[in-house]
Amino acid sequence: MRQNYTMKATFDPARVAVVLVRPSHPGNIGAAARAMKTMGLADLALVQPRHFPHAEADAMAAGAKDVLERARVFDELAPALADRELAVGFSARRRDLSHVPREWRELAPEILAAPGRIALVFGNETSGLSNDELLRCQRFATFATNPGYGSLNLAAAVQLATYEVAFAARLFEPAAAGHRAPASGADLEGLHAHLAEALVACGFLDPAKPGRLDERMRRLASRPSLEREEVDLLRGMLRALSARDGDPPAQ
Amino acid sequence: MRQNYTMKATFDPARVAVVLVRPSHPGNIGAAARAMKTMGLADLALVQPRHFPHAEADAMAAGAKDVLERARVFDELAPALADRELAVGFSARRRDLSHVPREWRELAPEILAAPGRIALVFGNETSGLSNDELLRCQRFATFATNPGYGSLNLAAAVQLATYEVAFAARLFEPAAAGHRAPASGADLEGLHAHLAEALVACGFLDPAKPGRLDERMRRLASRPSLEREEVDLLRGMLRALSARDGDPPAQ
Repeated sequence: MRQNYTMKATFDPARVAVVLVRPSHPGNIGAAARAMKTMGLADLALVQPRHFPHAEADAMAAGAKDVLERARVFDELAPALADRELAVGFSARRRDLSHVPREWRELAPEILAAPGRIALVFGNETSGLSNDELLRCQRFATFATNPGYGSLNLAAAVQLATYEVAFAARLFEPAAAGHRAPASGADLEGLHAHLAEALVACGFLDPAKPGRLDERMRRLASRPSLEREEVDLLRGMLRALSARDGDPPAQ
Repeated sequence: MRQNYTMKATFDPARVAVVLVRPSHPGNIGAAARAMKTMGLADLALVQPRHFPHAEADAMAAGAKDVLERARVFDELAPALADRELAVGFSARRRDLSHVPREWRELAPEILAAPGRIALVFGNETSGLSNDELLRCQRFATFATNPGYGSLNLAAAVQLATYEVAFAARLFEPAAAGHRAPASGADLEGLHAHLAEALVACGFLDPAKPGRLDERMRRLASRPSLEREEVDLLRGMLRALSARDGDPPAQ
């Protein structure tokens, strides 16, 4: 299978750690590890996990068990942040006593543009981060969600957070397009000339009264970005259609 | 609890349906329903789900059981798309026989800007969408992921997809900031004058040799966007500090 993306070699994935504080459900730990790995991250810290290691965490991690195996476990939040220059606390709620959290999509590029190791800190599934835990963070982030039901699953929040990290760091770049070359202007002109010729030859188009057929066909052909192979295919069809009437195949 | 966001009243959530084709794990159906609801969507269609309804789906849906209850179940993909003007097939792989999928983050705003009802179509956890299923879609979308491990969990993919829909539709807008008024220029000038006065009074600052203290303090105060309440708090501290030396509290 060909890969659609390549990973940027200059980004150090260890720059961004994910810290789960007091997670209750081991399945969420595994799903968070999987989410991290899909986005190129691997540094997971767990503060007082209720159950870890656990078979359910392994099952939900799928191909990201290596992230679980290397996860560091702490008794408190402070030592999990000791090697980090910046901790970002994720919170679903606006709290009166803390800073108003900023939309992560907007904040992530600012943070990733500056140097320093970062922790993305997520609280317990039910209670989130306590005020004490939030006060250990220097930035506060959130996701815009449904005011009627904004309860993101913990692993879903990690997925969104790491997705924005990958995007902000431009971590994945489209791989070279390979053989699917887009059609050039000359390819398209060749197609239109060929089509006009075939339609005149078969009597569909009267060259004295072309009407708006050429315009319509150009509009149709411009809708999808035609690939060179597709132009070749269409011209092959035209050759075959023209030949059916006994004329020599058009070139 | 105060809400951080309001939902745009002019967006019709029924415009965007999520279609899960042959999902194997009922937990993923529930988690997808939850993901949808957090992003303001509610229209879920299931094509040949292996198990549905199912207790595990209910458990993973958490507060989004209403989405599961209203989910429509189909035997085939075509009828699930019958009321949709556009179907977007999500695929993790580039396939030689189909269009190259586009990054959903880039495609979603284009699609949401046009009128018409949309289906976001996701395949089976293991095999994805078949070629036949992909051919029923008019657009193809993907997420940039780790080339070494790009396997998004099904519900995680639904979370990312609907997150981008909410963003592209500007579905959630920050609620009014409430009482946390930012400090005005006058508030800040009052603070700096008060500080200078207190520092002169306590002997820390010699008004004949101010040096760069004022500049430094202004720089410090401008770093976070100070709120009016915080300015009040700081001035209260200055008053108290000044009064400690036996001077009358500065106003």
